[in-house]
Amino acid sequence: MFTRLLLTGSAALFLMGAAPITQQGSATQPSPQEVLDAAPASAWMTIPAEDLVVMTLADGSVVEYQLAPDFAPAHVANIRQLVRSGYFDGASILRVQDAYVVQWGRADEDKTEAKGINPTPPAEYEFAPPADFKALPYRDAYAEAVGHVKSWPVASDGKSDWLVHCYGMIGVARDVAPDTGSGTQLYTVIGHAPRHLDRNLAVVGRVINGMEFLTDRPRGTEELGFYKDDTQRIKIVSVKMAADLPAEARPSFQVLDSDSPTFAAWVKARANRSGAFFVKPAGAVDLCNALAPVRGIK
Amino acid sequence: MFTRLLLTGSAALFLMGAAPITQQGSATQPSPQEVLDAAPASAWMTIPAEDLVVMTLADGSVVEYQLAPDFAPAHVANIRQLVRSGYFDGASILRVQDAYVVQWGRADEDKTEAKGINPTPPAEYEFAPPADFKALPYRDAYAEAVGHVKSWPVASDGKSDWLVHCYGMIGVARDVAPDTGSGTQLYTVIGHAPRHLDRNLAVVGRVINGMEFLTDRPRGTEELGFYKDDTQRIKIVSVKMAADLPAEARPSFQVLDSDSPTFAAWVKARANRSGAFFVKPAGAVDLCNALAPVRGIK
Repeated sequence: MFTRLLLTGSAALFLMGAAPITQQGSATQPSPQEVLDAAPASAWMTIPAEDLVVMTLADGSVVEYQLAPDFAPAHVANIRQLVRSGYFDGASILRVQDAYVVQWGRADEDKTEAKGINPTPPAEYEFAPPADFKALPYRDAYAEAVGHVKSWPVASDGKSDWLVHCYGMIGVARDVAPDTGSGTQLYTVIGHAPRHLDRNLAVVGRVINGMEFLTDRPRGTEELGFYKDDTQRIKIVSVKMAADLPAEARPSFQVLDSDSPTFAAWVKARANRSGAFFVKPAGAVDLCNALAPVRGIK
Repeated sequence: MFTRLLLTGSAALFLMGAAPITQQGSATQPSPQEVLDAAPASAWMTIPAEDLVVMTLADGSVVEYQLAPDFAPAHVANIRQLVRSGYFDGASILRVQDAYVVQWGRADEDKTEAKGINPTPPAEYEFAPPADFKALPYRDAYAEAVGHVKSWPVASDGKSDWLVHCYGMIGVARDVAPDTGSGTQLYTVIGHAPRHLDRNLAVVGRVINGMEFLTDRPRGTEELGFYKDDTQRIKIVSVKMAADLPAEARPSFQVLDSDSPTFAAWVKARANRSGAFFVKPAGAVDLCNALAPVRGIK
């Protein structure tokens, strides 16, 4: 979930005006929200400002995303450099394809030099299985095991692991192999997780705030949801690393620590929705329905 | 997928301007699009006009959805009656919660009589396993088996089956049990499939065209993504059964028949994306990434 916790998305459907009873659990099974409300401060990890990107669109909307240097270090280094060299200032949202992705970058990419980056980074589509992989106790259609590493959604075939294309996750657009994309064009998932993309593209981050300012856009009219021209494209006026903003203007966010007991209790609550509203708890949860909660702290 | 087939959503990410090479398969594995292009006419089933609802919004956008009377007959009978009695004319989009649902109905529901419906239909959250259930040969996090019945996405625990809350599927909003919702408020899924809702609400249909005119809306500012008042709500100016429209104005759609050999080939193509773009075919596909293709025929 990439919205403020008051809008968890785990609430179910009400007739308008009813109290959010779906956010209440039962006597034996708290709701996800109740687990979070009871969480100690130590269950939350602050996202480093060096990993946080602040993107401002032409209408003043702000989208914030977190980079994942532990998993895609070369691509993340490129992205930080692109941000800092001002490459994305004057970029646009290029493509909005319903049920699939929003993609952004420079419409004049072929004419704009990307300074100081590695133009041919290694693929970084997969990585050696980290020791701190915490598997979910549930099946997955695509992988032998799924779970979390440092609060990121990860899948594994036992021999290698990879970041998963869940809603809000960010990947690097590329051409056909051997191109691996440099980071000049990025996309985020706006529909049911397109898991067939896993291990085929570099996944480098996730949108943690302002996702709605990407998803509420008109869908592109050209093939694959591309916008036709600059009259349709949505301009990006600035992209900054949070670390480079003055302290008083710097946003800050925390993510629930997937190594915490709270996280395990929260996953169990997501998998077993109970209380007055739910007739039948599912007894399981898909990885992409167990995305680490994020909250703003300023 | 609920868009015209030119925008399948199965395409992956390109640098802008490249040809859609992702829609080409390999020598041994056609792409999903190639399978559809080669499909005989007999692989496509026309959606009955009596099951097709045409909803026009205030800005002229049209959203079309298909009802599922085979699975939720009492709720579907109510919805047809609500449409025909004009109950939804003057209804609105009430709620848009990012990554979750769009919900619509009358904002003044408590003051507006729903004539001629069954106000307390049976739950219809599950049904006896149909003989024509075609299981996918892949795992699922939530169910023992998943697959299709008459081109609808279905899950099964061996003892009962249910329609699945995939992207674009439509359910009936309700209050707490024993209320089962009458059909006066409906919602559709606009994010990763919220499978914890399966077997907890009546699933009655799916959006088959114009989904983008629901998903591109501003997200609601109130709790659970509800709109604050009529200044935010998006008015629905008319809702009609396609069967009641004059023939020359009646839209018509076909869905790929899940009992056809083409469908099985298409699922296999979705599960094994190959060709120049894909480095690693997944070897499996999630039910909600195998939604029966729909095409407009007029």
